[in-house]
Amino acid sequence: MDIEQFRKAGYQAIDRICDYYYSLQGKPVASQVEPGYLRKALPPSVPTVGEDFQVIADDYQKLILPGLTHWQHPSFFAYFPTACTFEGILGELYATSASNPGFNWSASPACTELEAIVTDWAAKLLGLDAAFYNSSEVGGGVVQTTASDSVLVAVVAARARYLSQHPEVSMEELVIYTTTQTHSLGKKAGLVLGLSVRALEVSFQDNFGLRGEALRKALEEDGAVGRKPFVLIATVGSTSSGAVDYLEEIGQAVASYPFLWLHVDAAWAGVSMACPEYREPCQLTAVNKYADSFCTNFHKWGLINFDSSFMWVRQRQNLINALDITPEFLRTKHGDAGTVIDYRNWHLGLGRRFRSLKAWFVLRSYGVEGFQKYIRDTVKHNEAFAKLISESAQFALVVPPFLALTVFRLEPRSLPKDKLNELNRAFYSRLSARSDIALTQTDLNGTFCIRLAVGAARTTEEDITRAYAIMCDEAAVTLKEWDESS
Amino acid sequence: MDIEQFRKAGYQAIDRICDYYYSLQGKPVASQVEPGYLRKALPPSVPTVGEDFQVIADDYQKLILPGLTHWQHPSFFAYFPTACTFEGILGELYATSASNPGFNWSASPACTELEAIVTDWAAKLLGLDAAFYNSSEVGGGVVQTTASDSVLVAVVAARARYLSQHPEVSMEELVIYTTTQTHSLGKKAGLVLGLSVRALEVSFQDNFGLRGEALRKALEEDGAVGRKPFVLIATVGSTSSGAVDYLEEIGQAVASYPFLWLHVDAAWAGVSMACPEYREPCQLTAVNKYADSFCTNFHKWGLINFDSSFMWVRQRQNLINALDITPEFLRTKHGDAGTVIDYRNWHLGLGRRFRSLKAWFVLRSYGVEGFQKYIRDTVKHNEAFAKLISESAQFALVVPPFLALTVFRLEPRSLPKDKLNELNRAFYSRLSARSDIALTQTDLNGTFCIRLAVGAARTTEEDITRAYAIMCDEAAVTLKEWDESS
Repeated sequence: MDIEQFRKAGYQAIDRICDYYYSLQGKPVASQVEPGYLRKALPPSVPTVGEDFQVIADDYQKLILPGLTHWQHPSFFAYFPTACTFEGILGELYATSASNPGFNWSASPACTELEAIVTDWAAKLLGLDAAFYNSSEVGGGVVQTTASDSVLVAVVAARARYLSQHPEVSMEELVIYTTTQTHSLGKKAGLVLGLSVRALEVSFQDNFGLRGEALRKALEEDGAVGRKPFVLIATVGSTSSGAVDYLEEIGQAVASYPFLWLHVDAAWAGVSMACPEYREPCQLTAVNKYADSFCTNFHKWGLINFDSSFMWVRQRQNLINALDITPEFLRTKHGDAGTVIDYRNWHLGLGRRFRSLKAWFVLRSYGVEGFQKYIRDTVKHNEAFAKLISESAQFALVVPPFLALTVFRLEPRSLPKDKLNELNRAFYSRLSARSDIALTQTDLNGTFCIRLAVGAARTTEEDITRAYAIMCDEAAVTLKEWDESS
Repeated sequence: MDIEQFRKAGYQAIDRICDYYYSLQGKPVASQVEPGYLRKALPPSVPTVGEDFQVIADDYQKLILPGLTHWQHPSFFAYFPTACTFEGILGELYATSASNPGFNWSASPACTELEAIVTDWAAKLLGLDAAFYNSSEVGGGVVQTTASDSVLVAVVAARARYLSQHPEVSMEELVIYTTTQTHSLGKKAGLVLGLSVRALEVSFQDNFGLRGEALRKALEEDGAVGRKPFVLIATVGSTSSGAVDYLEEIGQAVASYPFLWLHVDAAWAGVSMACPEYREPCQLTAVNKYADSFCTNFHKWGLINFDSSFMWVRQRQNLINALDITPEFLRTKHGDAGTVIDYRNWHLGLGRRFRSLKAWFVLRSYGVEGFQKYIRDTVKHNEAFAKLISESAQFALVVPPFLALTVFRLEPRSLPKDKLNELNRAFYSRLSARSDIALTQTDLNGTFCIRLAVGAARTTEEDITRAYAIMCDEAAVTLKEWDESS
C-alpha cells in the first residue's frame, strides 16, 4: 500500500468509524456469534498472493464487527466503566503512525517526556501528593498496560526492597496480602511470582473493606509463625462491589511494619478523584500519607482508550533497584548521565507503546471541567439507577451504591432468604441472554448478586430508565416461572 | 468531540500521516532535542477548560514530532528491524475504535477467535509444527506485548510445571539458564521472578551460539551442587550479534532432563522463516522437535506495528495450570464449558488489546509472497552492506552477517589490536552524533563493535550505499584525529 492508497483507506476507516458510532445504539450489546464462527469463515492460511485492501476492510465490517461485544454501547453495564473517546482514538492513530518502542529516553525522547508530564498532570488532577510527581525526581508516574501489570511491578519492587533489608528470608516465607475482595490480579501476582497470597477476611458490615484491626491481627499471626508479609494490595473500589479498604486505619496499623509495601489499586474508581467531592470516599488523604504505590486505569472510567493504567510510586529508586538491567546495546549518553528517565526500568518488559499521547489528547480536550462533568454525570446516572432499585418492592441493594457501580438483586418479600441465590441465578440467566443490555454477576460472601456499572461515554438518563424497565420485565417473567415451577 | 468533528480531525490525521511519510527521508533520524525540552514547552497541569482539538493536533506537529526518533526512517539501522506498515496502522485504528479488552471469549469473541486464527496462520507461514497450532487444541499461539513478556510467561509456566513435579524444591534452588549473549530479557525475567540466572559461556569460535556440550556440563555441575535448572532461554538471532544457539545439540542434551523447559527466543530473526531458505539457519527442525515455547516479534521484522509478539506453546495446559484464576465475575457460559480459549489465562495481565487485527490486515495484504519478498529484500540489503565492509581494507566483520544484521568495526592494519576498542568507541561516538543515520553499539566478549540492522520497510539499496559512504567518511576523520592525537 503506497501513501495515496493509505490516504484513501484511511479516510474510509474514519468514515466507517463514524458509521459505527452513528449505528451503535441499534446494535446488540453483546455479540451474538457462536464459538468457532470465525474459523469457519476464514481460510486456513495466509493467502499466497496479497489481497486488495478493500476486500480486507470489507471483511472487517462483515466478519469482525458482528463478533465484537460493544463496550461503548450506551447499554453496556458489564464489568466496569470503559469510556473510549474520539480523542483517544486519534491519539492511538498518531502514536501508531510513527511506531516508537520508547524504552530509553533516546529511543524517542517525546515518548518518555510526555509520559512523565502527563502522569504529573494526572497526579495533580486527582489530588495526589507532590511526592508522586516525576518533577519531584524522587517519586514518579508511569503508564502501564493494565492494573495487573501495575500490581506486578509494585509487588516485584516491594519484594526487592524487603529482601534487600532481610536477605535471610526465603521466597517461601514471603506472603502477599490481599483481601477476599481484592481483584483476581492479587492472586494472579502470587501465581506469576510463585509467592503465597493470604486473602484477609472482610465483612458485610464493613461493606467488604479491610479494617486496620484485621490487618494488625494478621500481621501478628504471621509474625508468630515466621511468615513474612511484605506487601498489601489494598483496594479503593473493588470490582465486585466497590468496596474501599480503610486506608487510614491500615496506614496506622502498618506504621510499625515499615517493610510492608502498601499498594493501592483504585483501578476503576480512582479517576473520580478529579472531583473534589469524591476524594474523601476514595480516601485520598490516606493514599497521600501511606501508599507506596497507587494505580488507577484511565482506560476504565477515565475517557482514555485501552490500555492506559496509570501507576505512581513514592520512591522511583525502588523500581530501578528491582528492575534495572543495562546491557551495552542499551547504553546511551543521557541514560548513563542519569539526566533522563529510562522507563524500561519502571516496567516488566523493554519496548513500550507511546501510550501517553492519547492521554495528552484526552486530558487537554476535556480539560479539568469537562473531565469532572463526565464523572459527575456518570455518578448521577448510577445514583438514579440505585434509587429506582432501592425504592422498588422487589429489588434490593446488596451494598450501598459506590460512584458508578450498583450491586443489587431480586428480593421479593414472598420468598425465603435461602431461595434467593437460586432465584437470582435464574434472573441473571434471563438478563444475560438478552442482546440489548450487558451486565455481570458477582458473589459477595455467598450472596449471588448482579452488578450494573455505568460509564460508557454515551450512556444517558434514558438508557438508565430503560435498563431499569428491563430489570422489571425480566424480574416479572423470572418470578412467574418460579411460581409455576414450585 | 462529536462524530462529525471526529471525521474532520480523523481526515486531518490521515493527511498528516501521509505528509509524515512523504517527508520522512528529509528528517533527522534521531531526535535532536535536549532532555527536558518538552516540560519547558508545556503547562504544568491539565487546562481548566477543554481546548480546541485543532490546537492539540497542531501541538503534536510542533512539539511531539521533533522529539521522535524516526524508527521508520530508511536510514534507521539501530537496535533491530522495525517495520511499521500502513496496513498495521489501519489495523490499530480499527482496533482502538471499538476498544475491547478481550480477556474472555465472551468479552469480545472476535478478539479471541482472530488471535487464535492469526497465530495459526503465522505458525504455518513460518513452518512451525502443527503441534503449535491452536487448531491442535493441545498447543497454541497467543499475541503478547513483547519478547520480554513472552519469556516471562514461558518461565512462569516452566516453573509451575517443574514445581508440580518437584514440590520439594525451593525457589532459591531454581535456576534460569541463558547464555552470556541472551537478550537482557533473560536477566530481567530473573529479576522479576526473583530467581537465579546462570548465563552459560559461549565463544567467538561458535559465533556465540550455545553448544550442547556446554549445556550438558552446566546441567551436571548444577545437579552436583543441588541447583535446579528448569528452563533454558535459547536464542535464534541474538540482538547483539545474531548468534544462534545449537538447538539440535541442545535438544539432545536435554533429552535426559525432561523438566528443563526449552524456550526459543527468535525475537527479530524468527519471521525470516517465512522463506524456506532461512529455516535451516534459524534451526526450524530443532525448534519443531524440541521447543516447549517459541517466540518471534512480528513488530520487529514482520511488518506489523508494535506491539505484536507472537508466542507459541506445545502444551497450552502448562499456561493454564500456571495462570488460571476465574473469580465469579469473570465466569461465562462458554468459558465454563471449556469450548473457547480464554486468553486471560495465557498471559500475565487480564485485559488485552485487539492486537491480532493489525496482524490479520498485514498478512492478508502482503500474502505469503509479499511477505517473503520483503524479508528477502532486507537480507539482500544487509548482504550488500556486509560485502562492502568485508571487501574494505579498513573495516572488518566481527562475526558473519546474519540475515538483517551486520556487526563490524574499524580495523586498520596500521593499528595494534589492543587499541581497536578505543578507536571504535571514537568512531561510534562520531557516528552517533550524526542526525542522518542511526546505528547502535555492542560488546562481544570484550570486543567493542558497531551494529547495523536493516529492516525499515522503506530502506533501499541506495540507503545502504549511503550508509557505507558515511562509514567511510567518519572512519577517515576518526583515523585522522587518532593520528593527530597520538
